[in-house]
Parts: sequence; structure tokens; C-alpha cells
Amino acid sequence: MPVLTKNLEISTRGKGTYEITDEVAEVVRESKIKNGTATIFARHTSCSLIIMENAAPAARRDLERFFERLVPEDADYEHDDEGADDSTSHIRMVLTRSSEVIPIADGEMQLGTWQGIFLFEHRRASHRRKIVVTVIGE
Amino acid sequence: MPVLTKNLEISTRGKGTYEITDEVAEVVRESKIKNGTATIFARHTSCSLIIMENAAPAARRDLERFFERLVPEDADYEHDDEGADDSTSHIRMVLTRSSEVIPIADGEMQLGTWQGIFLFEHRRASHRRKIVVTVIGE
Amino acid sequence: MPVLTKNLEISTRGKGTYEITDEVAEVVRESKIKNGTATIFARHTSCSLIIMENAAPAARRDLERFFERLVPEDADYEHDDEGADDSTSHIRMVLTRSSEVIPIADGEMQLGTWQGIFLFEHRRASHRRKIVVTVIGE
Repeated sequence: MPVLTKNLEISTRGKGTYEITDEVAEVVRESKIKNGTATIFARHTSCSLIIMENAAPAARRDLERFFERLVPEDADYEHDDEGADDSTSHIRMVLTRSSEVIPIADGEMQLGTWQGIFLFEHRRASHRRKIVVTVIGE
Repeated sequence: MPVLTKNLEISTRGKGTYEITDEVAEVVRESKIKNGTATIFARHTSCSLIIMENAAPAARRDLERFFERLVPEDADYEHDDEGADDSTSHIRMVLTRSSEVIPIADGEMQLGTWQGIFLFEHRRASHRRKIVVTVIGE
Repeated sequence: MPVLTKNLEISTRGKGTYEITDEVAEVVRESKIKNGTATIFARHTSCSLIIMENAAPAARRDLERFFERLVPEDADYEHDDEGADDSTSHIRMVLTRSSEVIPIADGEMQLGTWQGIFLFEHRRASHRRKIVVTVIGE
């Protein structure tokens, strides 16, 4: 059974959402798999994955502000060795996703019209993030 | 390797949770796959998927009220082109799931006794929602 | 196509996070699958799965305290047949994950350095929890 595993590296420049749909679609094309699934996995505990509205940047700004309020950096955390964005990063990661699975049909990811795949960076500093894409199918 | 992909259309009548376990189980039966996984994917950014208690409607009402409080429609959002349920829909979707993967053994989804699969509609208006089910296995 | 399905039973002793990475890794080894995915599924509506920082217990304590505040037991829930941890368990489960999918390459789960797989128990009483691990690949 065909399986293709590819490692992506995504550069982030502080907190925010970074679209990776094109990078994942490229792996799916390369796999030549017609029907199956693409699993996307973030190998980190201070960033995460989301499916999000990909047209209106204002929608993403609302989302980012919501998470700032829901998991505020100025609350009292026990684990703050790496700064005010330490425990908050882990909590925001847990509230979103480490893995996302997208169906493939006719050789294409079956995302809806407004769906994009995003890396959600929870750290203030710049990072190189490792994402694994696994395509399984026929 | 056997892969079966099926598109479901689910009608929703405003905000709330709609059970789709039977529709997914029907696809699993049709696939004749004995061991593997069923991936369920919602092709939208204003509804989502959850696994939830399927016996007590009161538990689902508590859940729905919790999300009304956690992501209130009367807060100040930048993205409200389509109304007060615009950004809130996206945020509630991100806090829940777009994809869910259920194991299959002996030809049956291995859901626990009280687990049902639900579409969580975050929009006030009626919609026809597109769900993709991908069954992979042997 | 090789598929291995294994049932794990995990004992919990009240609310908290319980690491299950080693148990899942053992199933992956046993499968002899070199490339593919491991799907982990919790067959319950009052516990869930998370990927979490596996080195600093303080980070997990912050996470657990966050969920106590976000979904407080002393709020007014309609569904409380089984006590104050009844609806809160379901809501905390919905905010985290029932399924998690981890890529496998070279016969190993591709977890990041600090990532562990945890069962998140939302009930006060002790439980025997059923987890299904499905390894698919080549």
C-alpha cells in the first residue's frame, strides 16, 4: 500500500496563524495517491494546527485575540521557565490540534471552499517548526 | 488497499448538535472493511464535529450553553460581515474538531457505549452541510 | 495491507493527566509497520486524549488548573445525575480530543522531543479506561 511521509519546515515570526495549505497540497500531489487521507502532524508542544477560514484576515485576527483573552499571559502560572508564553503555549496547543486528517479523492484534498490549513504559533520568538505529512491510500 | 470515500449531506436547522452516527456507520458497513479506520471530515469553517454523550439531551444542552458563554455573540468582533454568528462560528469550530478518526474492528466502529458522532452547527440559519467519510483498511 | 488493532486498558485514579506514550509505542513496535500512522482513540465521553509537554509536571498542573477554571464544577449545569463532574467531564472532553493520529516513519512514532501522549481523566472516581490503537501502513 502506498504511503508517503514528508517532513516540512515552516518558519514562524512570532505569535499568529501561518497558512500551510499549499505545502501540504504539494505533498499530496507528489504522492500520486488518488483516494485516501493526508495526516498532518505538528511535532511541538508550543504551536498547533487548525483548519480556519482562509479568505478574511479579520476572522483570523478575531481568533487570535480570542485566544489571548481565553488563555491570558498575565495570569498566574507555575511553569514559566521560558517566559510568560510558556504555559500559555501548551494550553493553547491542547485547546486546538496536533494532528489533522484530510480526505483525498480524485488526487485532491477535499477541503471546503473557505478552508485553509494553518500552523498556529503560540510563541513570541521566531521558530523553525517541523510538520510531518503522511499520505495513505491507493 | 481498499479505500471507500463517501460524501454525506446533513441538513441543519440552526445552532445545535445533530447526531450523524448512523449515517457514518452505514458507510462503514458498505465498505466491507473489517479492520482499519473511518475518518470523518467537515468541509466547513462554521460548523464542526464532536464525539459526545448520545443518551442524555440535557448533557448536550449544557454543552451548547457553555459554548454560548465561552464565545459570546455579543462580544466585539472585527469580522461580522455575515452577522453576530460569523466570527463566533469560526472560533467554536477551532475549539472543537474538523476531523475525527474512529477505529474499525470486526467490521464495526469501535465507539464506546455512550459515544455518538455529532455535527455541531454554529450558524443560526439552516444549512446543507457536506461531510466526507473515508474508510481505509483491510 | 497491514493493520494492527490493539485494545489498551488504562487505570486512572481521579482527575488528572496520565502518560500512555510507552503503551502506544509498544503497539507500534509489535505491528512491525515501518511507515504509516497510529490512531489512538478513547472510547469514553468523560475522559479524553491530549498531546502534552512530557518533561515538566508543573506545565501539566497549569493545564489542569486552567480546565478547572474554564469549566468550573460549581457552575449551574442541567445534567448532573452523576455529580458535579458529570457535564464538566463531557465539556472538557469536547474541548480536547477523542482521537489523535501520530505519523510513523522508520518504524517509530514521529513525536517531537517534548511530546507525550496523555489520557486526560475528567472524573473524580477511579476508572478503567479503554483505548484503541490502530496502526496502518506498510
